[in-house]
Amino acid sequence: MDEFTFIDQIKQSLYKQPALVKGIGDDAAVFRQSAQDIVTAADTLVEDVHFSRALMDALYIGYRALAANISDIAAMGAAPAFYLVSIVIPDSCSDEELNDIYKGMSYAASDHRMDLIGGDTVSGNELSIAITVIGFVNRKQARLRSAAEPGDVLFVTGTLGDAAAGFHILNSNKFYKDSSYYMDRHRMPQIRSAFAKQLEPLTRVALNDISDGLANEANEIAEASHVSLTIYENQLPVRDSFEQFSEEEQHKWKLYGGEDFELLGAVPESEWEQLKSIAARNSTPLTAIGYANNRENKDHHVWLVDDSHTPKRLMKKGYTHRSR
Amino acid sequence: MDEFTFIDQIKQSLYKQPALVKGIGDDAAVFRQSAQDIVTAADTLVEDVHFSRALMDALYIGYRALAANISDIAAMGAAPAFYLVSIVIPDSCSDEELNDIYKGMSYAASDHRMDLIGGDTVSGNELSIAITVIGFVNRKQARLRSAAEPGDVLFVTGTLGDAAAGFHILNSNKFYKDSSYYMDRHRMPQIRSAFAKQLEPLTRVALNDISDGLANEANEIAEASHVSLTIYENQLPVRDSFEQFSEEEQHKWKLYGGEDFELLGAVPESEWEQLKSIAARNSTPLTAIGYANNRENKDHHVWLVDDSHTPKRLMKKGYTHRSR
Repeated sequence: MDEFTFIDQIKQSLYKQPALVKGIGDDAAVFRQSAQDIVTAADTLVEDVHFSRALMDALYIGYRALAANISDIAAMGAAPAFYLVSIVIPDSCSDEELNDIYKGMSYAASDHRMDLIGGDTVSGNELSIAITVIGFVNRKQARLRSAAEPGDVLFVTGTLGDAAAGFHILNSNKFYKDSSYYMDRHRMPQIRSAFAKQLEPLTRVALNDISDGLANEANEIAEASHVSLTIYENQLPVRDSFEQFSEEEQHKWKLYGGEDFELLGAVPESEWEQLKSIAARNSTPLTAIGYANNRENKDHHVWLVDDSHTPKRLMKKGYTHRSR
Repeated sequence: MDEFTFIDQIKQSLYKQPALVKGIGDDAAVFRQSAQDIVTAADTLVEDVHFSRALMDALYIGYRALAANISDIAAMGAAPAFYLVSIVIPDSCSDEELNDIYKGMSYAASDHRMDLIGGDTVSGNELSIAITVIGFVNRKQARLRSAAEPGDVLFVTGTLGDAAAGFHILNSNKFYKDSSYYMDRHRMPQIRSAFAKQLEPLTRVALNDISDGLANEANEIAEASHVSLTIYENQLPVRDSFEQFSEEEQHKWKLYGGEDFELLGAVPESEWEQLKSIAARNSTPLTAIGYANNRENKDHHVWLVDDSHTPKRLMKKGYTHRSR
């Protein structure tokens, strides 16, 4: 398959985003957005670092690659609109696998009415998928991680550690309860995009997506907002069947397990009830897991309170396969 | 060097683009653009496919990678504004080389007052650099390759085949006249961004950048515009010292040599004089190389007229290392 045939194949016959002026087929795509702010992020997945063709069907690989990128847009409180895909294709990758990767991305895209508007396909020795996503958010309403303030309620959506458990199960031949649930949480993460977009009425929300584990994301909010945070370990939401895993696994996965793509945020206590109604309307599980401490606590650390009631410092660590 | 240290190192202390709301440091970057249309394109370079560390310093690799992307924005008549870089880094790549790649990109960026606003760094076995660029263009003035019409003057900027000659020289140990000129045309291509932006007063221009060779780009304009084109081979602009290369090399490089990043365009004959003054004001060499044929000629082919005065069909071919 040559490049031109391939581009014809992945080119959408119909674009969904009204902001689009010109899609694939020129030197660049063109869009127009005068009312809203524009957000953009890029994320790359490399074979045998972030995924394995032996463990996961190409459809899942594509789905998950785009979902990870959509999550960054959701974490800004924005609606995803466009994506560009640059893919390095080794000889070992068949045309069918390649098509399935793009098909997987298109499934994730259509969940969010996104359009594929550009990219590049090049040959190489190692399969890697570099995606750039573009989204829109009301002016001045991008939800920054620097927005937390003392006294805020700290919350997470969904349950934690599921994707790490799913990855563990995919790599194992043991029997686990609820295994397809956990595997799907790893392979086809559902992004909290609709929920994030509906936070617009709130006056202030600090928001991060949990791509690198709760510990890392909480520390990023603490540092960017210049606040310290307290998290109660026994309030961390997990799926009922999560108790089948060892204590050590549970602890590790819910605090450091990456790629759950749930949202971690902080809102003023006065808006907590409003947040709960938004979550209920969206059928989004929402749990208060702690708070931002008063100004007297001058460090910008994250403190974890376990059953011994002694706060221990929760450090950035764990899921570092994405850095060098 | 961990990811956080590295991001701190490449993060600009000062952003130049007034449209930027939030640069690197959150889940996504944010910008605002209500007056102009937004253009975006993505391009990837892979080691030993598009560049070689053995032949080229890391500074050049970075410079050229971003320049190739800026060229796509220029080819839309737009001004580049932002870029995102996703890089896959093998163990063989030292911190110094990595820094030099980013430094090379920052040199190309500062020529155009661009800001680095996002990206990703991941480890892998093969060095690859995936860049997304974002630029701005006046509403409805994106210069599409589909805009050519019968009777238009076909033009190119600069001289052709230089980058291919430079690549040949870099791979050779023979003596060549003017060798540093040719090598620099390959390693540090100057993008016709300012010239492209100043085409705004023209009512209509079809535009492509010559990244894949004149033959490919001309065919893209012919197909997208539904016109046939005639090109006179003896009018193709080349550097004086280009005659030192064999007839075969000259022919191949000027017609199929990629990555000159000059512009190929078509304008109404009535605006040719105005185009010439714009080029003169910008010190941009400009040459008429042919025209778009009348509607009677119903094919959408490109015809090359050589000294025998017999038109031969100029096919898409040549520079295909970018596709599979």
